[in-house]
Parts: sequence; C-alpha cells; structure tokens
Amino acid sequence: MSQIDELLGNAEAHAKGFDDGRLPSAPARKVAVVTCMDARIDPYRLLGLRAGDAHVIRNAGGVVTEDTIRSLSISQRKLGTGEIALIQHTGCGLLTFTDEEFAAELEIETGERPRWGAHTFPDLEQSLCNGVERIRSSPFVPRTGSVRGLVYEVETGRLREVHMP
Amino acid sequence: MSQIDELLGNAEAHAKGFDDGRLPSAPARKVAVVTCMDARIDPYRLLGLRAGDAHVIRNAGGVVTEDTIRSLSISQRKLGTGEIALIQHTGCGLLTFTDEEFAAELEIETGERPRWGAHTFPDLEQSLCNGVERIRSSPFVPRTGSVRGLVYEVETGRLREVHMP
Repeated sequence: MSQIDELLGNAEAHAKGFDDGRLPSAPARKVAVVTCMDARIDPYRLLGLRAGDAHVIRNAGGVVTEDTIRSLSISQRKLGTGEIALIQHTGCGLLTFTDEEFAAELEIETGERPRWGAHTFPDLEQSLCNGVERIRSSPFVPRTGSVRGLVYEVETGRLREVHMP
Repeated sequence: MSQIDELLGNAEAHAKGFDDGRLPSAPARKVAVVTCMDARIDPYRLLGLRAGDAHVIRNAGGVVTEDTIRSLSISQRKLGTGEIALIQHTGCGLLTFTDEEFAAELEIETGERPRWGAHTFPDLEQSLCNGVERIRSSPFVPRTGSVRGLVYEVETGRLREVHMP
C-alpha cells in the first residue's frame, strides 16, 4: 500500500467526523501565513490555528516568489485578509546549497537548466527582510501595514520575530 | 492586539510543550502534498499527518505553477520524497473569475498589469488533470510514477480521487 493510499484512508475517517461544512471561504482571522514546505512545520499546531482561520501559503524555503505575490494578492483582494506572517526557519535546506549549484546539478542530470532559480539564501534574517520588503513594495498586495517576519526554530519549537529595519 | 500577536502568544504555548526537536528534515512518509491556501483546508487533520511526515506546498488554487515545480524538484532531489498528492477543492475562489478579469481589476486599481497570470480555472477536474500532467512532464521532478489528483469537498469533508486519462 502506498503512503497516499494510507492518507486516503485517514481522510475517510476525517469525513465521518466532519462538521465544518458551513465555514465561509474568507479567513476568520484575516491573516495569511507564508512559510516553508518543511515537514517539521505544522502551522496549525504552531500558531494555534483552526480550520477557517487563515490562508496558508507554502513553498520550498518560505520565500517570497512571484507565485507568493499572486497568492497574497488574491488573498487580500478576493478574500479580505489584511495581516501577513512570513515564517522561515532554522535548518532550512535552502541554506545549504546555491542557485548555481542546483541549476548545474539539474543540467548534468537532465541536460536542461531550469528557467527558474532555486531561491536559496545564505542568511535567514536577511532572507526574511528581503521577503517582507518584496511584499511591501508590490503594487498588487494592497494592505502591507502589518507584514511580520518570523523565524521558527525547529530545534526548540520557538517562534521569534525579526524586527525590520 | 493584532491577530498575529495573538498567534505569537499561541506559539509560546507551543514551544513550552515542544519535544520534536530531533525530527529529521527528510519527510518520514516521503510524500509531498500540493494544495490550495484555502482557510478551510487543514491538511494535517484531513490526511492524518503529523509533524515530520510530509512536505506541504500551498498556493492560491493549489495549481501547479513554476514555483510548485521548483518546490517539488527540491523536495524530491534534496529530501527524498517520491509520491505526490495534488489536492484542489470545491468552492475554490479561482473558479469564480478569470485571469483577464483579475488582471484588468489590478490594472484599474494600480495602473499596472501583473506579469503573472492569476491561474484561475473554469473546471476543477480538468485543472487537476492539467496539474498532474504538468508535474509528469517536467524534467526537473524525477519521480512521477505516483502523482495522484484529488478533490477535497469543503461541504462534506470528503477527499475523492480523480482518475487520470
């Protein structure tokens, strides 16, 4: 049995106890959380979120890419969120190699270089500052008065704020 | 008090009870889940996932964008995942407007059209098929033998598979 088949079994149990069918699509807390896909981060447990509370946007690194801006733009313009929590974390894989190394690895193995960069970063705090700045300077994200940069420490379970310059 | 301040308070409580500091970064189930940022979807509760189990990649719509391919490429090549569950859902906001409508709205309000499309879709099953195909045909995602397309029904809490042509 594949892992996904096992997860589908878990989902059947979930459907049996389900009583959230009337939740509205607009997030109750009007918050969008942007974070890394990392398996160790469960934003619901970490932040005490419940279904219906917040948009959760995740990619490799929790970096602010064009797709992150697209998602935040839709989140704010179509579903009324206002605050944004950008969470990157210690021990992130993207701290351990460079865009050029990854592109070269892909080219050797596939004969092709990707059009996209891997969005690696050498410094966690600096990456958060860059991400917050990228959100604040986008014309397509209307509400940028409350964009917070946070580091999640996978070793301690702590979440700490990085104050922006 | 802002919502994010409240979530930071919740995170302090989380840190107090934390005992997952030794989880490895590679996902235990070797699965990557791709889904929508929608507030009603808690992938942990839905799929019975625990911290450390799976990568979770989320954007507006749960669509397979260039950034999704970047994340999946890093997930498989650097952290050893093999299976991919692509989950889109009923009642998605991206079923309710078109890329052109969103671009026109942004242009009217900001004077600028985004370089990116909104990745809206008129048909849920078709969007899943397109997404699975986009993953399978990417040279940068090495293991595409187990890419599954799933619809989450926000009204019933059920997760059902869409069998690919």
